[in-house]
Amino acid sequence: MTIFDAGKYIESYRKELYESVLPFWIEHSLDHEYGGYFNCLDADGTVYDTTKHMWLQCRQVWMLSRLYNALEKNPAWLEAARLGLDFIRRCGRTPEGRVYFSLTREGRPLFIQRKIFAECFYIAALDEYARASGDQSLKDEARRLFEQVLAWRADPAILGRPVLEGQPATSTMSEPMMLLWVADQLSGGGIHHPQSPLMQSCVAEILLHARAERKLVLENVAPDGAPLPGSLGRLMNPGHAIEAGWFVLEHLRGTGERKAAAAAISMIDWSFDRGWDPEYGGIFYFMDSEGLPPFQLEWTMKLWWPHCEALIGLMLAYRETGEPHYLEKFERVSEYAFTHFSDPRHGEWFGYLDRQGRLTHTLKGGPYKGFFHLPRMLMMCLKLLEELA
Amino acid sequence: MTIFDAGKYIESYRKELYESVLPFWIEHSLDHEYGGYFNCLDADGTVYDTTKHMWLQCRQVWMLSRLYNALEKNPAWLEAARLGLDFIRRCGRTPEGRVYFSLTREGRPLFIQRKIFAECFYIAALDEYARASGDQSLKDEARRLFEQVLAWRADPAILGRPVLEGQPATSTMSEPMMLLWVADQLSGGGIHHPQSPLMQSCVAEILLHARAERKLVLENVAPDGAPLPGSLGRLMNPGHAIEAGWFVLEHLRGTGERKAAAAAISMIDWSFDRGWDPEYGGIFYFMDSEGLPPFQLEWTMKLWWPHCEALIGLMLAYRETGEPHYLEKFERVSEYAFTHFSDPRHGEWFGYLDRQGRLTHTLKGGPYKGFFHLPRMLMMCLKLLEELA
Repeated sequence: MTIFDAGKYIESYRKELYESVLPFWIEHSLDHEYGGYFNCLDADGTVYDTTKHMWLQCRQVWMLSRLYNALEKNPAWLEAARLGLDFIRRCGRTPEGRVYFSLTREGRPLFIQRKIFAECFYIAALDEYARASGDQSLKDEARRLFEQVLAWRADPAILGRPVLEGQPATSTMSEPMMLLWVADQLSGGGIHHPQSPLMQSCVAEILLHARAERKLVLENVAPDGAPLPGSLGRLMNPGHAIEAGWFVLEHLRGTGERKAAAAAISMIDWSFDRGWDPEYGGIFYFMDSEGLPPFQLEWTMKLWWPHCEALIGLMLAYRETGEPHYLEKFERVSEYAFTHFSDPRHGEWFGYLDRQGRLTHTLKGGPYKGFFHLPRMLMMCLKLLEELA
Repeated sequence: MTIFDAGKYIESYRKELYESVLPFWIEHSLDHEYGGYFNCLDADGTVYDTTKHMWLQCRQVWMLSRLYNALEKNPAWLEAARLGLDFIRRCGRTPEGRVYFSLTREGRPLFIQRKIFAECFYIAALDEYARASGDQSLKDEARRLFEQVLAWRADPAILGRPVLEGQPATSTMSEPMMLLWVADQLSGGGIHHPQSPLMQSCVAEILLHARAERKLVLENVAPDGAPLPGSLGRLMNPGHAIEAGWFVLEHLRGTGERKAAAAAISMIDWSFDRGWDPEYGGIFYFMDSEGLPPFQLEWTMKLWWPHCEALIGLMLAYRETGEPHYLEKFERVSEYAFTHFSDPRHGEWFGYLDRQGRLTHTLKGGPYKGFFHLPRMLMMCLKLLEELA
């Protein structure tokens, strides 16, 4: 390989964050009339739908607050975070305390999912904003809701998900990932915290999904880690598995737990190797571990976020191991992502490409794409690159 | 145009139905051990998942029975229909009488939707099989369930769908379509039946979705036909709108209602013209009526079923109008479909292509693709081509 030029990446990642991503969202997403954020934004920032998706409202509050806490005490970022925080607190919760999935522009409820994820993003938003603003009462609300989430998770019928007797007992990787992320958040939002029993069980459950004998990571396994039959049991989501790997790696940082860290690095390795499309480049969205047809129609598409997760995961794996192949892969993914997703004209990244790398959607924000994966990646990679330089 | 050679199409459509589609499903889908059908079949008929999706179990019972009733009293088809009928009646309904969305191979419940569609396919299956077998008790069960479906539709909370106050009152085209289809089925499964108030209201509700001033059909409108804001209100599904058009056309056949029939033909015209991809051919899956980015990741894909619906719709529009451009379009769609979807090697059609027409999935059957759209199209087009010849 050529010598890795950290300075070059620091410059381009900083520029992308400060001159492309942040201005796009600050300029186009803030709803000064009703509060919260427009999260459905077309290429040039035009609002094409005023629905406010709670995952994205909460993630934007979290991300703005995190940038404020970690990068720069920029009052405009805190003010923008406050706009979303007030909105989600005023309109985001059901009378029973759950968190809606989507609201109208004015904040009236549209839809609620039978899952715990909206709640988890809400908790993280409150906690990170509390750190930025010093408002302790938000931390209390976040902690109380987390207790409820843990109870709801244990009894999905409360969420409206009927438990049917043919359903195999299943560990879905997204749940322990999300709970670990929130638990880490609540314990200080960073590293060097003590490992709680909940965190330990989340890490153990995540690592159950890594199948060493086949060098791959499955999205769904039995609670004891045994493979599940059918398409559900063969499903892989390489970007998601890389994200899980780096969650664990970040969580374990400083604990000296080498075995679990090595397993997390393997998750990143295997998922990157399986997920990278040798023909057209980019990371597949979904795959079947035996090459059978996945149920997901969009499985061949290349999405922005698995590439963000890969950039973080590869940088963290390099920090842990010092192995140069991670930097080579980082360069490869960075080249693909900046060439295909970045939009120098209007700022921010596009999100959705077909397998060959052609844009399928002009949107910059939609029901699942907001101010989150990309700025988180840029922020984290900037820090890691600066350590490296 | 060159002279339309109906005989050529009769030969190829008959061959496709009798030598490609029917043998594929009769050979690979019947589960003689547990009853019902394997509906997740790969290119060569290999079962890649044993989940039994109730939409497809019911549709296969209906289709086999309809072929028996309409085309040929083939005892093997009736026997295969019976295998599915016994399975769905034994395992398909909840203790409350609803119909599951999916079952394990053995028939244990896996999932239930908050929608009425599984029930509707179940009703149609029982009714059509009753006609084939002469078992009147099945007709009674079908009628009783339809009464329940109408009640559930009026109160979605019974289905587990919370009604939230921000939701705009919405007419979703699939509901009146499905109810009209089932009502037609129960009234004799064909033409020249009296129009009930339910049928009349379904036709009126479907036609509300056609926007003459813009020459397009929207999937979702307000109950009075007014446009809805946002992506939901701009959503078009051209294959679905063509299907709705031909449902209405078939329903009105013989009633002499010219105005509604003309509106239904317009639905077919506008949807075909908007849905056909001028660049790569084939019909888009989803579109935004103003060219904004649709929420659906797979919107550019070319699926087998909109092409089946277009072939039926174009043939019916020709029968109604005698305008030769429908035959030209029929030839264009037929050429595209047989070139891209048909699999002369193992039989049956592939289902999923990218925008450029490349196969994305090797499957012949999956959670939403079974023995239904294609054989229905081949059966109906055969009849229509024979009338023409």
